[in-house]
Formats: sequence, C-alpha cells, structure tokens
Amino acid sequence: MSDPWQECMEFCLDVTKRAGKVIREALQKDITIMQKSSPVDLVTETDHKVEQLIISCLKEKYPTHSFIGEESVAAGAPSILTDSPTWIIDPIDGTTNFVHRFPFVSVSVGFTVKKEIEFGIVYSCIEDKMYTARRGKGAFCNGVPIKVSGQEDISRSLVLTEMGFKKEPEHFHMMLANMKTILTIPVHGIRSPGSAAINMCLVASGSADAYYHMGIHCWDMAGGAAIITEAGGVIMDIAGGPFDLMSRRLIVASSRTIAERIAKEITEFPVGRDDTEGQ
Amino acid sequence: MSDPWQECMEFCLDVTKRAGKVIREALQKDITIMQKSSPVDLVTETDHKVEQLIISCLKEKYPTHSFIGEESVAAGAPSILTDSPTWIIDPIDGTTNFVHRFPFVSVSVGFTVKKEIEFGIVYSCIEDKMYTARRGKGAFCNGVPIKVSGQEDISRSLVLTEMGFKKEPEHFHMMLANMKTILTIPVHGIRSPGSAAINMCLVASGSADAYYHMGIHCWDMAGGAAIITEAGGVIMDIAGGPFDLMSRRLIVASSRTIAERIAKEITEFPVGRDDTEGQ
Repeated sequence: MSDPWQECMEFCLDVTKRAGKVIREALQKDITIMQKSSPVDLVTETDHKVEQLIISCLKEKYPTHSFIGEESVAAGAPSILTDSPTWIIDPIDGTTNFVHRFPFVSVSVGFTVKKEIEFGIVYSCIEDKMYTARRGKGAFCNGVPIKVSGQEDISRSLVLTEMGFKKEPEHFHMMLANMKTILTIPVHGIRSPGSAAINMCLVASGSADAYYHMGIHCWDMAGGAAIITEAGGVIMDIAGGPFDLMSRRLIVASSRTIAERIAKEITEFPVGRDDTEGQ
Repeated sequence: MSDPWQECMEFCLDVTKRAGKVIREALQKDITIMQKSSPVDLVTETDHKVEQLIISCLKEKYPTHSFIGEESVAAGAPSILTDSPTWIIDPIDGTTNFVHRFPFVSVSVGFTVKKEIEFGIVYSCIEDKMYTARRGKGAFCNGVPIKVSGQEDISRSLVLTEMGFKKEPEHFHMMLANMKTILTIPVHGIRSPGSAAINMCLVASGSADAYYHMGIHCWDMAGGAAIITEAGGVIMDIAGGPFDLMSRRLIVASSRTIAERIAKEITEFPVGRDDTEGQ
C-alpha cells in the first residue's frame, strides 16, 4: 500500500516554499506592525497573509482535515488535538525576528494522525534552509540528511533557550534562575536565536546540543518535533516525562543524557496547556 | 593625494576572504579542540592557522606595522595601542560557535592609525556576508550600503547581548540582573548570537537596534566599530562616555537615545583593560 501521507507532505512542501517567498518579499518592503497584546507579542500583516495562503491551499485540497494555527486560535478557533489528520501551522515562527529582519524566521508545519506526528516541515526562509522529516524516513536539510551532534557531555554543550519579559514576577525570576543554573554547570554557552522551530532544527543538524523552553505553543513545536526525532535526537517534557505536544513545554537534545540533565536542573513554572486555555 | 590606507584595506579584504575559506573548509572536517582555560573559552587549530595566515600575509606586506591579535596576546605579545598603523585581528570571532558549527562565525579586522580606526572588515563566513567600512566612506555588506534601523524607542527594540559563566559570583549576578533590567523596560526581545563582531554588524544593518557587552576585547570590537559608525550608528562606553577601544566594554545602538538609555539602565562590573592586564 502506498503511503497516504507522503502526498500530503509533498503538497505541503510546495505550499511552504511559496509561503517563504511571500515572507522574503515582505522583508523587502516596509512593514506595518500591528500589536497583538504587548510589544513583545507582535503580529504583522504578513503573518495573516501567509497563514491564509497556507490554510486556504491545504483546506481546498484536504477539506476533511483539521487545522490548528496561531492566528486562527487567536481569532477564537479551538485548539484541541483529535485523531483526525491535523495540520498544525505557524505561518511565521519568529515574528519578532521578522519585524526586525533578524535572520531567523521560519514557516513551521506539523501533521498529525491519531495524535502522532507523521511529518514536519520547517522552512528557515531567510537562510533558505528547508528542513523536512517523514516518520521513519530520516530528517533532511535541503535534501541532505542531517543528524544530531550525539554529544553526551553537557559541559561540552551549546544550549539554546529564549528569554522574554513575563508579567508574573515569579515566572520571570525562574526563567532567569534557570539560565543561571544551566550556565553554572557550566556549558559552552547559551544562544538565543528567537525562533523555536529553527532552534529545534539547529539541534537536529548538530549546530547546538540542546534547547529547552516553557511557554511556547503546539504550532511552534509540531514541525520541529518530527525533525529532531528523525535526526536521532531526543524530545521530552520539561519534567523529564514523555513529550506532550499540547503541554507548551519541551526539551530537545542530542542525547537522552543531556535532556535528562536539563530536566533535572531546571525549575518548572506553570504555563497552562494549548488545549485547555481560554483565548 | 591618494588615500594611503585604501590599499591596505583592499589587500586585507583579499586576505580575509582567503581566511574565511579556510574556516569554511575546516567546518567540513572533524575539529580537534584544544582547551585554552575553560570549556567556555575554546581555541582550535583553525583559530591558530587563520591568525597565522592573516598575520603572515599582512606582516610580509607591511613589515613596519603593529599587530594585536587574540592568539598572539595569549602567547605573551603586548596589547598596547600606539600611534603606529596597527592591525587588530580576531581570526575567528565566535570560537564556541565555530566548534559547534553554529552559523555565526566571523573574521574581524580593524586598522588604526594614531589610535583612530581607519577601516574595519568583518566577514561572517558561514553566511558569506562581507561587511566593510572605510572612515568617511560608509558601511557595506557584500558591496551594498547598509544603515542602522534609526529606531529611537527602546520599547520597540531588539537588543543583543551575550551571557557566559563568570567565576566571580557578583559579576555573574550583575550580568543576569542587567538582562532582567533590559527585558523589563520592556524591549521586543534579547537575542544572543554568540559573535561580538557579527552582533555589531547586525545592528549596523538594522537587524537589531542595540548591543551591549562587558568583558570583550579590542579584537572583538575594532572591525565592527568602524562598521557601526559608518552605518550611522552610535558607539559608546558602557557608562555613557566616549568609546574606548581598549576598555573591554561597549554599547552600540541605532540611535543615541537608545544607547544612552542602556547606559543608564545597566550596572557596571569591573572587567580590566586590554592594555594593562597581565596575560
């Protein structure tokens, strides 16, 4: 029997390339910025335009499938993962980077069936790097196989995470305290590129050894989750248990040893879930 | 009268391109890592090889000039800035990134005469972006003029800084406290790419609005200092006074307003000077 999802992946790859082109073209123009809820949480006309492009193409082709995307959720659509074939889409991962033309901006798409991720696509469109992974078939960047560094020693690791202002003082304090704890291990360094999906791909391709984050969304993680797994990496919950796509938290790493060490070192703070929070 | 330093700049541009090629080729191979003083402070065979390539070419061509470079200083050479024509060289800025193949690695060269920076060259060799600036002649990336964003409002700014483990607990605490202070303003975000010279070029080309750092060296700053100035940006001391190349500290920004605000917000900690510290 032929692979029914391979065709979906190929169709999506074409749509993603077109979306990336729209993003690159927009970066040549002046950008009208609309504020969503705070200066840190920006959304742009292009964000809407790219999501509409991706979703309308995919919905037309696959009318019975489900869709979860940042902008549609913000507009009140539900964010419940079901057994249906489901497209989980971030039209611009790294919106703040996009607004500033900081060079890490991506389109991220993950596709689940029966709540399992079947494939992921992350297109770092300024770098022009197309990361892809189909379950059981390996991970690729521009068609070339990629794999994690295989690093087992956290003291020789480059770690990725992101920092942002948090309204809850206790959470803000814990975020910074966690960075201090990781630096003190010590590690080679911490880098903050500003795109969750690209961070996952940097670990998948061996350019960093770990990435941890609390407070991101399923659309930031779904595409990268397929890629890190197929590149031989580890993905787990921030507390060390199994990764949960709707939990808004993750650790990815080049090895189980490093992922578990990070889980042990950092302190959790509550971030809610994608499938229970009101918008 | 013709510009005597333009020829130096053109010769150096050629040498820098060759150095970048050596770096890119090395990234295709396995890397033998040598530790300098700690896991955070790495130096590689390529680092030595590239510095030797650059210095031997420049010394042969300009035998009467002075040279300041990271590796030669580590080997005991003095680091005193004089009135002589002086080449200030970082063969690989972002050594930790280089070791991990993290995509921000550069060759940085600044050239001073009578302690004034005459030109700067920063070659981001994985991205293949050649940043150049000659005093009074503007700043360029791959030959295309660049300029800062012109942003005046810090709350709409993307800020760059770097974080690393520091042996002195008080300094480590202040570094993190400064990041917290900047995030709380709030700003759009903080990014940490891991290469001082590239950070300066990101501000110079408008992809970020500010960069501050305490504890870096003259060879991390000299090339970028010419580029930020010629791109219309501001460079100053961390305390708000005039920039001092040997002071190991700097703020660069898209505008004086933002640079002065950062100077006001952050707390200094002692980092020594390049021209007085024993090696």
